[in-house]
Amino acid sequence: MENFRLQIPTDIRFGKDRLAELPEVLAPLGKRVLLTYGGGSIKKSGLYDKVTQILKDSGFEWVELAGIEPNPRIESVREGTKLIRENQLDVILAVGGGSVVDASKVMAAAVYYDGDAWDLVKDSSLIGQAVPIVDILTLAATGTEMNRNAVISNMATNEKLGTGGWELIPRASFLDPTLTFTVSKWQTAAGSADMMSHLFEQYFNRTQGVDVQDSIAEGLLKTIIKHAPVAIQEPENYIARANLLWSSTLALNGLVARGRNGGWTCHPIEHELSAYYDITHGIGLAILTPRWMKFCIDTDPTTHAKFATYARNVWGLTQGSDEELARQAVEKTYHFFRDQLEIPMILSEAGIESQELVREMSEKAVLHGNLGQNIFVTLDVDDVESIISASFEAMETF
Amino acid sequence: MENFRLQIPTDIRFGKDRLAELPEVLAPLGKRVLLTYGGGSIKKSGLYDKVTQILKDSGFEWVELAGIEPNPRIESVREGTKLIRENQLDVILAVGGGSVVDASKVMAAAVYYDGDAWDLVKDSSLIGQAVPIVDILTLAATGTEMNRNAVISNMATNEKLGTGGWELIPRASFLDPTLTFTVSKWQTAAGSADMMSHLFEQYFNRTQGVDVQDSIAEGLLKTIIKHAPVAIQEPENYIARANLLWSSTLALNGLVARGRNGGWTCHPIEHELSAYYDITHGIGLAILTPRWMKFCIDTDPTTHAKFATYARNVWGLTQGSDEELARQAVEKTYHFFRDQLEIPMILSEAGIESQELVREMSEKAVLHGNLGQNIFVTLDVDDVESIISASFEAMETF
Repeated sequence: MENFRLQIPTDIRFGKDRLAELPEVLAPLGKRVLLTYGGGSIKKSGLYDKVTQILKDSGFEWVELAGIEPNPRIESVREGTKLIRENQLDVILAVGGGSVVDASKVMAAAVYYDGDAWDLVKDSSLIGQAVPIVDILTLAATGTEMNRNAVISNMATNEKLGTGGWELIPRASFLDPTLTFTVSKWQTAAGSADMMSHLFEQYFNRTQGVDVQDSIAEGLLKTIIKHAPVAIQEPENYIARANLLWSSTLALNGLVARGRNGGWTCHPIEHELSAYYDITHGIGLAILTPRWMKFCIDTDPTTHAKFATYARNVWGLTQGSDEELARQAVEKTYHFFRDQLEIPMILSEAGIESQELVREMSEKAVLHGNLGQNIFVTLDVDDVESIISASFEAMETF
Repeated sequence: MENFRLQIPTDIRFGKDRLAELPEVLAPLGKRVLLTYGGGSIKKSGLYDKVTQILKDSGFEWVELAGIEPNPRIESVREGTKLIRENQLDVILAVGGGSVVDASKVMAAAVYYDGDAWDLVKDSSLIGQAVPIVDILTLAATGTEMNRNAVISNMATNEKLGTGGWELIPRASFLDPTLTFTVSKWQTAAGSADMMSHLFEQYFNRTQGVDVQDSIAEGLLKTIIKHAPVAIQEPENYIARANLLWSSTLALNGLVARGRNGGWTCHPIEHELSAYYDITHGIGLAILTPRWMKFCIDTDPTTHAKFATYARNVWGLTQGSDEELARQAVEKTYHFFRDQLEIPMILSEAGIESQELVREMSEKAVLHGNLGQNIFVTLDVDDVESIISASFEAMETF
C-alpha cells in the first residue's frame, strides 16, 4: 500500500424528500446562485419547479444556465463562467447528472482564472480557487458528486479530457434515489457500466497489499451486479436505485483509489470514441471492457492471478486454473452487459459504423491517456487499435 | 436503506514518514498546543522525541498531559480541560491509541461547557463547540481517528459510557503503519477483535437493502481476518499493519453505519465488564461475541439468514442449511479468535475470576445499552446474564 492523503468534506444528504434542507446548505455559501441544468428533463419531472420554488421562498436570487450537454462542452463552461462574473454570483447549484456537475466544476474554477477555461482542462495545475458547488444529482454514474474530477469535451478539436482540483469537490450533494426513477433503461445501463468501469480501472492495478481497497471494490461491484438489472426491470424500485446511487458515489470518491499508483485504460480509450462520435460514455465502456480484459489475458500471463481473484470474489466462480477462471470472468462480464443490462455490445450498434477513424482514435488514446506507461497492461497504438477493432464484432471466445 | 447524512472532513495522512507534514497541518489551528499521550510507550519508541522536536523547530508552544489510561478516565479529561483553559491553548495534538484520542475529544468539548465534563459523557446533547484535535495514531482499533465518538470511564461509579459530537471529529489524523510495529501481540489481537466487533455491531442489523454497507463490512472483515494473524506473527509486516490500520478507521467512520437504524449489543455488554474489572476492551468483545452469536441462533430463527450470509461472504462456507451455515460461522469466529489471534476465550483467563457481579453487570448493560429495544436481537437481563455466564466456560458446541 502506498502513502496517501484522503479528505472528502462533501456533506452528503442521502435519501428521499430532503430538498427542504437546501436553504440551510446553500445559505452559508451565499445568496446569489447560478442554477445549472441539462436538457430539460428536470422540467418534465417537476424537479425544476420544486427547486426554484424553494429558492424563491428562501430569498435566494438566481441566474440560470440550461442545456448543458451529455459529454459537456467547453462552450457551456465558458458561458457559465461569464454568467457568474457578470452577475457576481456566489455559488453554483447544479441539478442533473454528472455532466452538469462536471461543467459546473470547471466554470467555478475558470471564474478565478484569467485565460480561457479550456486551459484548465488541458492543465489541471492551473486550477486554484473556485466558486463553491452544491448539487442535486439525478443520475447514478460518474461519482463526480463526491470527488475533485471533471471531464469536458471540445468538439472543435475532437478532445475529451479530464481535469480536477481540490477546490472543485462539491460542498454538498443531495442524493435522492427517487430522482433516478425516471432515468431510462439505456441511461441506467450506461451509468451502471460507467461505475463498474471506474472500479475496474482502479482494481486492475499492480500495487500490492491493497486488500482494504480491493475488497471495497469487489463489494461495490457485487452490489451493482445485483441491483442494476433490478433497476432496469423495475425503475421505481427504491432499494435498487439507492444501492446503485450510493455505489456510484463510493466507486470514485477516493476510497478505492487511494494507496495505489497507476493510470486508467478503458476510460481514455472510450474518451476518444465519445470525442469523435459523441456516443454514450457508459455504453462505450461496456463494449470496450471485455475486449480489453481478453487482450490482457491473451498477451500477459501475469494478469491471470488478478482476473482469477475477480472471478472468485465478484462472480463466485471456483472451478479451474487462474487462466480458466480469468476467461470465465470475462465471459460473465460480457454476458452481464449484454443480457442483464441490455447493452448492444458492438460499436456498430452503438453509433460508430465506420472503422476509418480507429487508427486516429488509437493514436490519440495512447497520447492523451499515457497508455504506454504505468497502467495495468501498457498499450501501444497497435494494441489499442486491436481492442477497438475487436469491438466491432460480437465476442464468441473469451 | 434509510436516509442518512455523511460528512467526514478529517484530513487523513496515511503512510510512513509523514511527520514532517505536522506543522502545515497544525499551524492553521493555532500555535499553542496541548500534547496528550498515554503511559510512556511513545517515549520508549522515540516518537515523543520526534514530535516535540518538530514542534520546537516550527515555533509551537506546548503543554503536556501524560498518563491517559486505557479505558480513559474522566479524571484525565478534567485535567486536560483545566490545562487548556489555564494555558489558553488552541489545539490538541493527541499521540497514542484510541484512549488518548477519546479523552482528548471530551476535554476539547468541556472547555466550552460550564459544568463538569462527566455531564458531557452522560448527555451528548450538551456537546457543542470544541477545541480542534489532530492525532498521531499508534494503535489500530477504535476508529476514533475519523469519527465523532468517544468512550470514557468513571471508576467511581463503575460507568463506561459513549458520547459524541460533530465538532469532535479530528481535523487531521496521521496514520503511520510503522508506528504500530511495536504494538504487542495481545494489543494487536485486542484491537483486531475490537474492529471486527464494530463491524458485527453494524452488520447484524434489521435494516433491509443495505448491500453497499454490508458488502463493505464483509470486505473489511475478510481483510482483518487475512492480516491480523500475519501482524501477530510478523509485527513489522508493513502490508499487514497497513491493512489493519486502514480497516480499523473505515470500520467505524460512518461508511458501514449510515443508512441503517439500530443499536449495538456486545459493546454495551463489554463496557460493563471493563467498567467493573478494567479488562482489555477488545479481549472482552472477542470472548462475548461468539456466545452472543450462538444465543441469537438458538433463540431467534429469523437471524439464521443473516448469519448464513456472514458464513458465505466472509468465511467462504457453502455447505448446509442457513442454520447449519450460521453455526459453522460461529465456530469459525471462535476458533479464529482463539487459534489465530491467541486470545484466551474464557473470562476467568482474562481477569474476571468471580461470577458474583454478573447479575449486576447484566442489569447495567440492559439499562445503559438500551438492549430491550431496536437491536438485532433484543435482550433482557436474564439473556445478558446467560451470555456472560456462558463466557466463563469454553465453547464446545456452536
